[in-house]
Amino acid sequence: MIKIYGDKKSGNCYKIQLTCALLDIKYEWIDVDIMAGECKSEAFKALNPNGKIPLLINDEGEKISESNAIINYLAFNTHLLPNTAFEFAKVQQWQFFEQYSHEPFIAVARFINKYLGLPKEREQEYRAKQEGGHKALKVMEEQLHKTRFLAGGTLTCADISLFAYTHVAAEGGFDLASYPTLQAWINRIKANEKFVSMES
Amino acid sequence: MIKIYGDKKSGNCYKIQLTCALLDIKYEWIDVDIMAGECKSEAFKALNPNGKIPLLINDEGEKISESNAIINYLAFNTHLLPNTAFEFAKVQQWQFFEQYSHEPFIAVARFINKYLGLPKEREQEYRAKQEGGHKALKVMEEQLHKTRFLAGGTLTCADISLFAYTHVAAEGGFDLASYPTLQAWINRIKANEKFVSMES
Repeated sequence: MIKIYGDKKSGNCYKIQLTCALLDIKYEWIDVDIMAGECKSEAFKALNPNGKIPLLINDEGEKISESNAIINYLAFNTHLLPNTAFEFAKVQQWQFFEQYSHEPFIAVARFINKYLGLPKEREQEYRAKQEGGHKALKVMEEQLHKTRFLAGGTLTCADISLFAYTHVAAEGGFDLASYPTLQAWINRIKANEKFVSMES
Repeated sequence: MIKIYGDKKSGNCYKIQLTCALLDIKYEWIDVDIMAGECKSEAFKALNPNGKIPLLINDEGEKISESNAIINYLAFNTHLLPNTAFEFAKVQQWQFFEQYSHEPFIAVARFINKYLGLPKEREQEYRAKQEGGHKALKVMEEQLHKTRFLAGGTLTCADISLFAYTHVAAEGGFDLASYPTLQAWINRIKANEKFVSMES
C-alpha cells in the first residue's frame, strides 16, 4: 500500500487525501508534525532532502515529493487528469499558478493567523499577503465565469490543487463574499459524493 | 506558428527558448518588456489575467501561461518528457521545487542585483534570499550525486526548468564553486549540440 507522510493541518497534504478519496485509493498515513519541526529532522530529510511534506512512497519504495506532482501521479490515466498535450498543460498551468501566485499568499497568511496566532512580529507580513491573495482569487473568479472548473468543463487535479487553500482562505483573512462564482465552485466540489473534508 | 510572449532577461522565458531549440520548434517571439511594466498593461492582461510572462499562443489561438506548463506542452510525447506515471511525476516534482523553493530565492536575488542594481531599500531582502537559495542548490547537488540529470539518467524538462536560473545564479550572489557536481551538470547541458545561450 502507498505511504503518505503528512500533517493534516496542511492544505498541501489535504490535496492528497482528497485525490485518494475521489479515486478510491487506499493509503497508509504517517503523521509528520510540522509545528514540532519534524520535517526538518535528519530522519525525515533522509526521505526528502528538501525537508517538506507531503511525501509519497509507492509499493516499489520510490519517493515523490511536491503535493501537485503527487496528485498528478495518483491521478495519471484517470478522469482527474486529461491526457492530451494542451489539456494536461492547462491543468499544470493552474498548479504552477497555485504554487507561485496563490499558496505563498493565502496559505502563508492562514498559517500565520491560524497556527501562529498572528504574533505581533509577523503582523506586517500577514497584512502584506492580502493583496497578492486577492489578486489570485480574482484570477480564479474570472476563469470560473468562463468554465465550470478551472481547466475546463470537468473536475481535474487543477481544482483539487486550488480548492485546498481557497476553501479555507477565510482563516487567512480573505473574505470570499465578493467572489460568488468562486463560492459556487467550492460548493460544486463539496457536493461530489466522494468528497472528504479537511480535518484541520 | 506558435507565438511566445516573453522578455529575454527572464530565465522563465529562456526555458521556452531552450526547449524549442532542443526540439527544433520554430516560433514567433513577441517582446514584452518587464521593466517597463508591459505585463501589467490591460492589453497584456487580456491575454493572461495573471499578468505574467511567458505566454504561449498555439495555432488554434489557445493560450498557456506558466513557464513549466508551457515547456511540458511543447515537449509532450518527446524524449524530454517521460510518459509513465512515476517518471513524469519526478519531472514535475523538480519543476514544483523550482517554482517554490528555488526561483523565489535565486531568480529574485538576481533580479534585485542585476536589473535593479541592488538598491539600498532592497538590500535586506536580497541578503535574506541567500540562505533559501543555497538550500535549493544543496538539494540539487545531492540529487546529482545520484543521477546524471535531475529526474534520472537523461535530460528532461526538469533540467531545463532548473538550468534557467541556476546557470546564472552568480548574478544573484550565489557562488557555485562549492557545488562541483552542479557545475558538471551545467556543463553537460551546455555541451548539448542544440544548446542555445540565454541572451540577457
